[in-house]
Amino acid sequence: MSGLTLYTYWRSSAAYRVRIGLALKGLEYRSEPVHLVHDGGRQHAAGYAALNPQELVPVLRHGDQVLRQSMAILEYLEETWPQPAPLLPADAAGRARVRALAQAIGCDLHPLNNLRVLQYLERELGQDQDAREDWVRHWTGGGLDALERLLADDPGTGRFCHGDTPGLADCVLVPQLYNARRFGMDPARWPVLARIAQACQDLPAFAAAAPEAQPDAPRP
Amino acid sequence: MSGLTLYTYWRSSAAYRVRIGLALKGLEYRSEPVHLVHDGGRQHAAGYAALNPQELVPVLRHGDQVLRQSMAILEYLEETWPQPAPLLPADAAGRARVRALAQAIGCDLHPLNNLRVLQYLERELGQDQDAREDWVRHWTGGGLDALERLLADDPGTGRFCHGDTPGLADCVLVPQLYNARRFGMDPARWPVLARIAQACQDLPAFAAAAPEAQPDAPRP
Repeated sequence: MSGLTLYTYWRSSAAYRVRIGLALKGLEYRSEPVHLVHDGGRQHAAGYAALNPQELVPVLRHGDQVLRQSMAILEYLEETWPQPAPLLPADAAGRARVRALAQAIGCDLHPLNNLRVLQYLERELGQDQDAREDWVRHWTGGGLDALERLLADDPGTGRFCHGDTPGLADCVLVPQLYNARRFGMDPARWPVLARIAQACQDLPAFAAAAPEAQPDAPRP
Repeated sequence: MSGLTLYTYWRSSAAYRVRIGLALKGLEYRSEPVHLVHDGGRQHAAGYAALNPQELVPVLRHGDQVLRQSMAILEYLEETWPQPAPLLPADAAGRARVRALAQAIGCDLHPLNNLRVLQYLERELGQDQDAREDWVRHWTGGGLDALERLLADDPGTGRFCHGDTPGLADCVLVPQLYNARRFGMDPARWPVLARIAQACQDLPAFAAAAPEAQPDAPRP
């Protein structure tokens, strides 16, 4: 047992990223579900807020270490268990490219669309469901359009975002495309992204990390 | 000459982060200003959009390399020029902590408040200046409150965010506090952050990177 506990929510795309990384590296872990809606959001409960003052999932515990922020957690997994399945290439330029692709989603796209932002749009700005869905589609569409160009125009792109093995950028891309589909967007708009996501979905690690495969997912 | 060109805007806090990193490492670079407001925003001009399809600053050119995303660029600087001024500690847990602090701002706070989001709130959602400033203060306040708790409660915090030398998290913190001040927030609300930011401002590298010190800043 690796002594790993993941505080997760089945549909959180930030938690989904970390689940993919853990699965790619073949690391076993205990899931500790944090329901983001029940009881007004259990991420706001005192016990969890003490673990993560940002009141967001995921958190990964590794022994005494409390690790926060999904992309930082993935880097920690990489540094602590560099094999199998390196999440970053060996060269600095390649590593910079992979990190920039991941951050194009993790910084500039995903945070605009998460639950707390949609709640603010509804509760503080009185925006109805149509306006909130337009908001999500605006930032998701523009963000993924830019990512498509970054990938389509670069010889570094292979079967996956960088070369022919999955890495950090793929861990971030797949959950974001899952989200786009939830909001009614057709991934065919981004042929390179859709092709890479399909290559990912064909791998058992990505299947194991999928929202519907989680213990806290609603049973059909 | 290091062959470095930074596409920058004096008041962009993402560009400001990279300027701090370059200055800490003593790297000379050429500044290529991209005015984010003139001509409808020169980051949207075809030439710049080809360089960065996200149409955001900064971009760093290093010889033939085109580097995007401020935190990925800072990691690249660290990997390419590990000395002087290491931006990350040597241990994986410390590195994870510093990255998580940086990402708490770079992912969950800053992207909500940048120019394009405020423009969308105004143009698409008809939000007036008061509502837009409330928006900025809401996300900035909550985000920095959480960061204050993360820093105040952790023995890893020193004179700077992590220990007694400035690093990646400080490069991200100082521009965000600059932004908070612009929106009328008093940094005294966050005593630990304010103390760290003051320690940073006392260093020549931070002074050289400041918005008002840039060649494209308006002359008083």
